[in-house]
Amino acid sequence: MATVPLIEYEDASPEVRAVYDDIREVRQTDFINNFWKGLANNPEQLRRSWEQIKVVMAPGAIDALTKEMIYVGVSVANSCEYCIHSHTAAARAKGMSEEQYGELLAVIGLAHHTNGLVSTLQLEVDEAFKA
Amino acid sequence: MATVPLIEYEDASPEVRAVYDDIREVRQTDFINNFWKGLANNPEQLRRSWEQIKVVMAPGAIDALTKEMIYVGVSVANSCEYCIHSHTAAARAKGMSEEQYGELLAVIGLAHHTNGLVSTLQLEVDEAFKA
Amino acid sequence: MATVPLIEYEDASPEVRAVYDDIREVRQTDFINNFWKGLANNPEQLRRSWEQIKVVMAPGAIDALTKEMIYVGVSVANSCEYCIHSHTAAARAKGMSEEQYGELLAVIGLAHHTNGLVSTLQLEVDEAFKA
Amino acid sequence: MATVPLIEYEDASPEVRAVYDDIREVRQTDFINNFWKGLANNPEQLRRSWEQIKVVMAPGAIDALTKEMIYVGVSVANSCEYCIHSHTAAARAKGMSEEQYGELLAVIGLAHHTNGLVSTLQLEVDEAFKA
Amino acid sequence: MATVPLIEYEDASPEVRAVYDDIREVRQTDFINNFWKGLANNPEQLRRSWEQIKVVMAPGAIDALTKEMIYVGVSVANSCEYCIHSHTAAARAKGMSEEQYGELLAVIGLAHHTNGLVSTLQLEVDEAFKA
Amino acid sequence: MATVPLIEYEDASPEVRAVYDDIREVRQTDFINNFWKGLANNPEQLRRSWEQIKVVMAPGAIDALTKEMIYVGVSVANSCEYCIHSHTAAARAKGMSEEQYGELLAVIGLAHHTNGLVSTLQLEVDEAFKA
Repeated sequence: MATVPLIEYEDASPEVRAVYDDIREVRQTDFINNFWKGLANNPEQLRRSWEQIKVVMAPGAIDALTKEMIYVGVSVANSCEYCIHSHTAAARAKGMSEEQYGELLAVIGLAHHTNGLVSTLQLEVDEAFKA
Repeated sequence: MATVPLIEYEDASPEVRAVYDDIREVRQTDFINNFWKGLANNPEQLRRSWEQIKVVMAPGAIDALTKEMIYVGVSVANSCEYCIHSHTAAARAKGMSEEQYGELLAVIGLAHHTNGLVSTLQLEVDEAFKA
Repeated sequence: MATVPLIEYEDASPEVRAVYDDIREVRQTDFINNFWKGLANNPEQLRRSWEQIKVVMAPGAIDALTKEMIYVGVSVANSCEYCIHSHTAAARAKGMSEEQYGELLAVIGLAHHTNGLVSTLQLEVDEAFKA
Repeated sequence: MATVPLIEYEDASPEVRAVYDDIREVRQTDFINNFWKGLANNPEQLRRSWEQIKVVMAPGAIDALTKEMIYVGVSVANSCEYCIHSHTAAARAKGMSEEQYGELLAVIGLAHHTNGLVSTLQLEVDEAFKA
Repeated sequence: MATVPLIEYEDASPEVRAVYDDIREVRQTDFINNFWKGLANNPEQLRRSWEQIKVVMAPGAIDALTKEMIYVGVSVANSCEYCIHSHTAAARAKGMSEEQYGELLAVIGLAHHTNGLVSTLQLEVDEAFKA
Repeated sequence: MATVPLIEYEDASPEVRAVYDDIREVRQTDFINNFWKGLANNPEQLRRSWEQIKVVMAPGAIDALTKEMIYVGVSVANSCEYCIHSHTAAARAKGMSEEQYGELLAVIGLAHHTNGLVSTLQLEVDEAFKA
């Protein structure tokens, strides 16, 4: 259970509704997920977060699906259950195949593995990597 | 300073040399980085790690550069300094442009941001994400 | 579900009851939360933990509410669901307003954001910060 | 060593200089720390980060020193060496006494301790904390 | 809820069944836990993981129970709920007494505590530890 | 560089010296490592930490070497460089062989690997593990 109430569209202030409307417009869906409903307790935080996400997650030099897969990798390492579910769903919605998901899983697992090995051994960074 | 000595090619056993040779062959470079020299204290661990990395990081349904960027994202969240440096270097070697790096940085930063917000609010996963 | 049974007052040994009694006395409430009931499987661990918490969380050079907010920040970064809930509740019980909670949320989110950026860039500590 | 060059004022573009100038103005100091010099490789990221930090870290319902101490707590749990040093320095610059620092240390240590105990025991959140 | 379907023996391909059969043989039990059923969506990942776990967790210079306790410690610090439950259960199945569990809990809690203190203080590694 | 000065025996107050003396007595060595010298800025924190460590790390139902290896595992997952070095050194001082260290490394790496896989897949805990 969340530490704050979730703000539904019907109960939202005009500034919160304006963000919800923009989310719906940009994402071409009526669905507003709990992340936004929780942030909406603080309309300014909601607005700032949305503006940032809208810019950063848009396709650019890195495509939108790749961005979602990177997001999943970070969220796994940070143990954010909600974020793992929401960005795995977003990656699938943006076309991630099950074969790609299998490889994403393998890369995330491997990265954790070598992170653990390297941290145990306290290896020094090779000069070549600093060049 | 590492918790184990680094094993140079000259001082390595035949089974360690066999792995080093394969790394050089697959990567088309003479360079053996500290990760392998540290693992080489345990030749079986070295061999297992290399077999795994060779398979998982090869291009497949996800291309090799994208895999490196996911690796960087995981390593940042796990605070693995060596891994961040080595996989950032690997991503650049595989063609990551500075514009792509700027977007990678932005996605990793954003993911940490929302991981922190979501964890604070303890949001429940939307049913829609479980479908 | 916990990995150990929760020890209720009725079923507790005299040394566990003594700690429960002191918790009730210091906190001026009859409520004993699951943290103590889990630790009570090991009475000595229970006693040591309570003695430590009683001293460290008491108001001193830092007031009690601020201590709870710092606690929430650490628990979020460590992904401790139970701790986030219990210390958010404790902060509210000690007078945290919703406006303060909104700012706490923003600071925690921001800290995660810049932690991620800095870790990605592997920035060196400025000499000025070491002075 | 950072994964990007540090951009000095002398070498910076007009939009980067504008941010540096604002940092100097708001903080009333000439000192630009490495965080900004690293972000400046991506002027838009630099601007967005500064705008966010300027707003979130300003005194509000929570005072500026408390915000810095929360920041230290999060950064410790996330193992961000640079962030720990920079925000410890910032807290001292904003008046943190050594007695307060000793208590901050104790609270952060204690929070880690109980985070570890609770995570080991997998305790369920008390209903009372969800009210 | 998992992000992938769980593959039961009845619905599994021959190569997945071969791994399940080997798990049952080695562990002398019919029980296949969710970890394997989730990995089975990617038979190659399943096989690689099982081969690795079978080798690494077997008794060697370190006995099997000690390996499970180390596993619990890592999983707690990584906040992996599933892993904490499964390896605590495995440790008990391999003979961990409640007295040993109490000490395991105490060591994990203490390690988190001093990890937090040391990270806050940013202590430099003593030369003596590098010898 | 640490965020606090390191307190040498010569400059220490009587209560700090008393703790240093006890450390030397219990450990049968003159060496006082930086952890204690940093904590000594806050004599009460120093005393509490030492009392706790002395009790928890003493051989009991779990032997002293096993406790050090668990400590290393937790410290790796928490990315505490100082703690990894100091407890690896302590484990060696208590008799850890290089073969045992190789297995410790393998278990820590494996645990990180499966922690990452499980977190990605968001697997639910089997009922059997809760029994």
